[in-house]
Parts: sequence; C-alpha cells; structure tokens
Amino acid sequence: MSAVRPVSSGELTFRRLPAGLDTPRVVVDRARMATNIEALQLRLDARGVALRPHAKTHKSVRIGRMQLAAGARGLTVGTLGEAEVFVAAGITDLFMAYPVWAEGPKAARLRALHEAAPGLRVGVDSAGGAERLAAAVAGGTVPLEVVVELDAGTVRTGVGTAEAAVDVARAARQAGLGVAGVFTFGGHAYQPGAAEAAAADEVRAVAEAAEALEADGFEVRVVSAGSTPTMLAAAAGRVTEIRAGTYVFGDRIERALGAIDADGCAVAIAATVVSEFTDRLAIDAGGKTLTKDRPDWLDGFGAICGYPDLRIERLSDYHGVVSVPPGAARPRLGEVVAVIPNHVCPVIDVVDRFAVIAADGSVEEWPVDARGRSG
Amino acid sequence: MSAVRPVSSGELTFRRLPAGLDTPRVVVDRARMATNIEALQLRLDARGVALRPHAKTHKSVRIGRMQLAAGARGLTVGTLGEAEVFVAAGITDLFMAYPVWAEGPKAARLRALHEAAPGLRVGVDSAGGAERLAAAVAGGTVPLEVVVELDAGTVRTGVGTAEAAVDVARAARQAGLGVAGVFTFGGHAYQPGAAEAAAADEVRAVAEAAEALEADGFEVRVVSAGSTPTMLAAAAGRVTEIRAGTYVFGDRIERALGAIDADGCAVAIAATVVSEFTDRLAIDAGGKTLTKDRPDWLDGFGAICGYPDLRIERLSDYHGVVSVPPGAARPRLGEVVAVIPNHVCPVIDVVDRFAVIAADGSVEEWPVDARGRSG
Repeated sequence: MSAVRPVSSGELTFRRLPAGLDTPRVVVDRARMATNIEALQLRLDARGVALRPHAKTHKSVRIGRMQLAAGARGLTVGTLGEAEVFVAAGITDLFMAYPVWAEGPKAARLRALHEAAPGLRVGVDSAGGAERLAAAVAGGTVPLEVVVELDAGTVRTGVGTAEAAVDVARAARQAGLGVAGVFTFGGHAYQPGAAEAAAADEVRAVAEAAEALEADGFEVRVVSAGSTPTMLAAAAGRVTEIRAGTYVFGDRIERALGAIDADGCAVAIAATVVSEFTDRLAIDAGGKTLTKDRPDWLDGFGAICGYPDLRIERLSDYHGVVSVPPGAARPRLGEVVAVIPNHVCPVIDVVDRFAVIAADGSVEEWPVDARGRSG
Repeated sequence: MSAVRPVSSGELTFRRLPAGLDTPRVVVDRARMATNIEALQLRLDARGVALRPHAKTHKSVRIGRMQLAAGARGLTVGTLGEAEVFVAAGITDLFMAYPVWAEGPKAARLRALHEAAPGLRVGVDSAGGAERLAAAVAGGTVPLEVVVELDAGTVRTGVGTAEAAVDVARAARQAGLGVAGVFTFGGHAYQPGAAEAAAADEVRAVAEAAEALEADGFEVRVVSAGSTPTMLAAAAGRVTEIRAGTYVFGDRIERALGAIDADGCAVAIAATVVSEFTDRLAIDAGGKTLTKDRPDWLDGFGAICGYPDLRIERLSDYHGVVSVPPGAARPRLGEVVAVIPNHVCPVIDVVDRFAVIAADGSVEEWPVDARGRSG
C-alpha cells in the first residue's frame, strides 16, 4: 500500500526536554500524560461506558494506579507475565485479553494467578483453549471466568461468528468455567480513515455475539471493545467497556490516524546527533530503541520534533539515519532532539525505566515494571 | 524493492527444542553456537586476520568469553553501556565501533570506562567528536585511542574519503588522542548478492585511508572491517581484524544472504499456537518478541521450522498471525514451534535471559548481561 497522506514531523510536538539527559532516553511529559488519562476517562464516564486501559502500553504499576485513580475499572493485560506484575502490586481487577494456551508452565502460573486474583478474567477463542484453562484451575475455590473473543475484522484471533462464540461459551461452561461475556479488538482501525467503520464492526460483532449468548442462556455482563483509534466511536451500543492502551502516551501512528491531537503526545525518545554530513545525519536512537514498527502508509521511523522536513530513513541497531533535504532546518552535531516514535508500545518494552518530566522541569525515574513480560 | 529470491521457511532448521518450555522463549543450540564460534575463528586464523566479534548480537559475558577462549582478539561493542558491562566482567580489550558524542553524562561514563579499561578504543568520524572525546578523558594517565570510521557504501556514519579521514585523525591527534587506525562497516552487504562487492568496498576504503594516514605520519595498527555477510571476503588486503557479530547465532536474513548454512542457525524462538482457523493460525510470539526487522526483499517476520509453506504475515505486540495455504502442513493448536527470527540482534535485546540447550538436551538459563544497554 502506498502512503495515503504523508505525515510530516511538524505535526507533532513534545513539550519538555530537560538538559543533561543521557541518550537514547525515553521521556514522558507527566502533565500531558495526566491530561490524556483524565480526558478519556471523562469522555467515557459521560457515555456511561467503563474504561479498562490496556497496560501493555506503559507496563507501569504507577501509571496503572493513575488510571485507576482517575476512574478506570481495572486494567487490561496481554500476557500472564503482565498480570503477575500487576497482581503482585495489588492491582487484581484484570482482564487478560488474550487466548492464552494454559498447558505446561503456563497452567501452573495461571492457577497461582487465579488464586491470588480470583476476579481475573481471561480471553478464549477455542473449545480446546477453554478446556486447558479449566484443567489449569481445576479444584480452585472460585470458578475462573472467561470472555469469548470475536474477530470483528482484524483477522488475528477471535471466532468469526456469533454462532462460533456460542460454541466456545458452551465448551467453557461444560468445562466448568464461568462465561462473563464477549470481547473484540478492531485492529483494522489501524489504517487511515478506517477507524469509524472498524468501531462499527466492533460494536456490531460483540452485540450479535452477546445476543446469541443470551439466547443460549448465558448472562452477558462484559461486552468489551475498543482501541485508541476506536476508543470513542466503539463506546456505543451494548459495549460496556473500552480497552484503549496507547491513548495514555500517544504516538506517531495514533496522530496520523487522528486518534490524538498534534500536542497530545506525552512520550518521546531523546536522541543525540552523533554524526553529520551534507545530506544526512545520524542519531543515537536506532532499531533497538525506536523499534521498526512502520505501517506501509507512514513514511520514516519516527518524527523529530522541531525539524519537520527531516526523515528517519533507516535504522540499524544503534543508528538512526536521518535524511536532510537541501536547505532544511537541521540540528547541529551533538544536539539532543526529541523523537516521537511510530508505535510506543514496543519502545517502552525495551527500556527498564523512563524519565518522567514534571511541569516544573524536575525529572523522576519510573520503572517499566512489566518490561519483557511477553508470555 | 521486490523480493529477489523468496526464502522459504524450509531452508532453515533449528535442531533441538526441549519439551515443557514456557513461551515465547529464546532458545540457543549450544553445540551449533560453539561450532559457529570455532569455524569462523579457524577460517580467520588461517588468513592471519584477527576476529573481534561484535557483542551487540549476544550481549552475553559468557558467550563473549567463549569467543575469546576460541581465539578472538577482544570484543567489539556498539555503546558505552555494553562496554561497561563487559569491562565490569573483566573483558577489557574492547573496541566501541561507534562515534559516541562524549558530552554530559556520557563524558563522565567514558572517563570512568577509560580508567577501568585503558586499552579501550573508540570510533570517531568528526573533529567535533574527537574534541569531545579528548575533553572527556583529559588528565587521564593513558591517552585514549580512537579509530577513524570510513563510509565504504553504507551511507550511515563514517567519513567518505581518505582525505576526510586524515582531517579527523589530525583533529584527534591535536586534541591529545592516540590514533590507532581506521575501520568501516559494509552495511550495503545486506542485500541479496551484494556481499562480495561490499566486502571489496570495505577492503578498499580502509586501505586507502590507512595509506593516507601513513603518508601523514600516523602509524596505522588497526584496519578493521567486516560483518557476517562479509566476514570472509573482507579478511583481505590490509584488513587486520573482522568484526562479525551475527555469525555466532545466525538468523534468517544471514541465511537468505548465504552467510550461514541452512543448518547454521543456533537460535530460535519457541512459540505456542494459541488460535487456529482454516486459513491462518496465531502464535504467541509477536512484535515484542520477534521484532519487526524485515528487509523489503524478505517475505514474512520469521521462519517456522518444519512448516515451510507457512508465512508469518503480521505481528502485533503479542500475536504472530501465520497464513496457512490450503493443504499445507500446519502445527496443531497448542503445539510449540521453533521460529527463526529475521534479525536476531534486536530479539536478544528484549529478553532478560535465554535458554541454552546442550547436546544431551539439558537446559541452562544464560542472562543477557547487556540487555537494553543502547546508550
């Protein structure tokens, strides 16, 4: 696919970059992050829809607590490893939105987690998956609750029809699991101009499945949908909760999709210009920092704030190669620039901590508590 | 650029995958790794060229020691953070092949590192960079030695001509630094069929610069080149040392380039099939594990051993979406498969440890000592 609309770096801003940072360094604007957390919560409160933010974006107990304090109904996680970190920190109202296959070491981990956090809910999209979940927690004091995943158009995981959802729910019930409801992820919203239709797909898919489950005698308490591009439009119909994650920080892809404002990005990578030539320069943020997420419709591997004509053309592990058109404004050798990453989630997952900058310019180190917890 | 030649998953093998692994999990075949280490060392020994392996691939003190024990002349690192880890472990013969900008926190770190490891050499490609290096170590007991970087065609860092190399060397000398020689990285070898020409570019660029430096009165002791695709062809002419890194593990890109044999890959990601449909399945290795390195000429985000017709089509953070053509052999739901990553270096950098499998099937956990040390 070719670029639908070019996104210039100049469309993005990062407000504060303190002096003396060692680079490359992930920096977070605390006030902007707090605003992002509060703004979505208020909007969903106004719609009467719960927010269960996906913690895979920040992987931070402290930010999770900020979201809960603002009114979020628990957190979403993607892996057992993330769930273990948040449960250990006392955050036990978790939904693991993933069809975990609970065999071997994962069975033991799930059992321990369920005992520590009986309210934990787990995604499921196959009868086989449900049977493994049930076997893993067999003999526990409280039944494990599952939420059946629907595919609303992402073509990833999740059953494709309401009938198939009923089949999985029946298998779960038969295996001894509780069935709390249904969920979906409209990943096909990650194309320019696609969010509204994807949100409608989400709303429709879960509504049809919820009705089919109810017709089969299930009580549907959870109807979960939403990503950052669809976080408002999917808060409709029967949807009871939204699972947006990236909204807390924002990134270049969300900006290009119109999901966040031009000044809505709370995260950047501070990088130093280490080498310069007439037509290019090199920064010390490469593929091991910016990561290589780049959809076909977006040009470059990040946006350099204040230098709208520069393009991060190539990444090797520790080098970002930045093309400089003739006459373009360019940073000097040794200058520290702020780079907005294309996709923030994998960026956070490579660093052990990030620098949180307060409105007064003071800097705190916050750990990425669930870093590397990909399973 | 379109695919030059399709690389089927079936061209790659990973020999051992023990039962009961928690997934996703990076696994290393110890015997294969030892063979890779020894084989390159023997070949370079036969040519009388030193091997200084790039440790950014494995980031492991233990593997670094294996390379040194096999005959490597010190290690190459890409960042101060990597150097700090290896120096702390007693490996002090290091070349940091990067034009670090030694201001602010990096100046203090470089100074401490140079005091702990006086033999440390550092790359440089600008007079300004040399001046910062000199200022950082000013007053130390031993002069810091630099190696001037040449651009042999990668178009990344490094000066473009022998004359410019002399200018940088003079600036370094004037600033009080020692000048040990020249180095280059033929990154343009990372295209199908390009390795031989890129190696010749490397050999020529450093030879011309070495001669120019000698004509200007410098004693050139280090003439350093080479990457895994050029590790043999660049061991020629005036080149004194080769800095290959990926050869220790191998990966799908190196295989596609012909730099390693079909059975030469010592690393894989063990992943579980968590979801299945007629035309696809999902594995629990996504972008936060496999990373998204994929050159234009290579199809898919990794190769699934034993299933040559399957293609890892898309990655989200925790999902790998695998397309399954009609009639193709496919793993069952819950099966653990071995995935050869496209590019192993960023994969190692997201995990805190990997599983090393011995010939008898026993498994050890080895830490990724320099994980996340990207600056």
